[in-house]
Amino acid sequence: MSADRGLWITLEGGDGTGKTTQAVLLAEWLRDGGREVLRTREPGGSEVGVLIRDIVLHHRGDVAPRAEALLYAADRAHHVATVVRPALERGDVVIQDRYLDSSVAYQGAGRILDPVEVRELSLWAAEGALPDLTVLLDLDPAEARCRLDSADKPFDRLEAEREEFHARVRDAFLGLAAAEPERFLVVDAAQDPESIASAVRERVAALLG
Amino acid sequence: MSADRGLWITLEGGDGTGKTTQAVLLAEWLRDGGREVLRTREPGGSEVGVLIRDIVLHHRGDVAPRAEALLYAADRAHHVATVVRPALERGDVVIQDRYLDSSVAYQGAGRILDPVEVRELSLWAAEGALPDLTVLLDLDPAEARCRLDSADKPFDRLEAEREEFHARVRDAFLGLAAAEPERFLVVDAAQDPESIASAVRERVAALLG
Repeated sequence: MSADRGLWITLEGGDGTGKTTQAVLLAEWLRDGGREVLRTREPGGSEVGVLIRDIVLHHRGDVAPRAEALLYAADRAHHVATVVRPALERGDVVIQDRYLDSSVAYQGAGRILDPVEVRELSLWAAEGALPDLTVLLDLDPAEARCRLDSADKPFDRLEAEREEFHARVRDAFLGLAAAEPERFLVVDAAQDPESIASAVRERVAALLG
Repeated sequence: MSADRGLWITLEGGDGTGKTTQAVLLAEWLRDGGREVLRTREPGGSEVGVLIRDIVLHHRGDVAPRAEALLYAADRAHHVATVVRPALERGDVVIQDRYLDSSVAYQGAGRILDPVEVRELSLWAAEGALPDLTVLLDLDPAEARCRLDSADKPFDRLEAEREEFHARVRDAFLGLAAAEPERFLVVDAAQDPESIASAVRERVAALLG
């Protein structure tokens, strides 16, 4: 994608893998280089999206699985059409926290919906739009959990199940990255933030030409 | 479908064609015959659905077309999973104002989204569930408009466009009915309400065995 049509970068990975830190560092570097940068996220990256996100979060557990997937897809459709595409057309760099890979990885790990169908739904929502670069911050879920919760108490059954779920999410992300090596940059998120940022900058610089 | 698994009846047609009147008459007749009846509707036939409906209506014109279709599909997914299926499993008769045929007919008439894709989306949302009977109340849009608005003022350009749109909706409904004659009962909604109710009762009685 030529620089004058903007560049779309998504950050993926579980909670606690450092997506926000990397988004901040990358945005700073790009702005220092004179680029217009839009930082955004899914779900909830638009006004309509915030309302949708409220429904999903406030009715957690009560929303039927397909309804939840369709609400996330609706958020995506509106966000891509009204926020991402206009920014890319202005020539901005869009740095986005989570996109369709998260939907596919989490739904696949949840084992209720078919991840292939979830991917098709997302692609329909976004009229097939895929990022120029997806940075996958890969981290052992136990390590990510330690970052999120420094209290090192022993796991109960529910926490063990959660751990297993997050291990499946990680595997799903790695599977998606392996299937699209040109789009993905997989980085070891156990490294220090500056080393990760450097690897990301190198790839982004190449894309910006 | 056997009576002890319930019966699912949807009412379709443009606004002003008498769907509510027929729903009331049919529900009364069924209840008099000792059946449990659930009257419901889409969109907004569930608690989550009311929230979704609010987003679509309060942001009219500002919601991206695919996002709107996905929101309606989310409403459908939740409604079918949490309201319609449980009622049918109890053995109730479900009388529902609008279902996927409305989505297909209106989206097709709007000429933005592909009606085949909208139908696939709805079927995915509802896990393929289709009603036992769909009553299409067919009426000339000009006649329906007179019922909704008795003031007989001349049409301006916008109203003429609306008229053309509603003519396309009517044609789309008739096309859907022609494609699935076993599911549809098409009735001339210009008849008096009691004649229509009688035709509907006859078909429902046959389905209830």
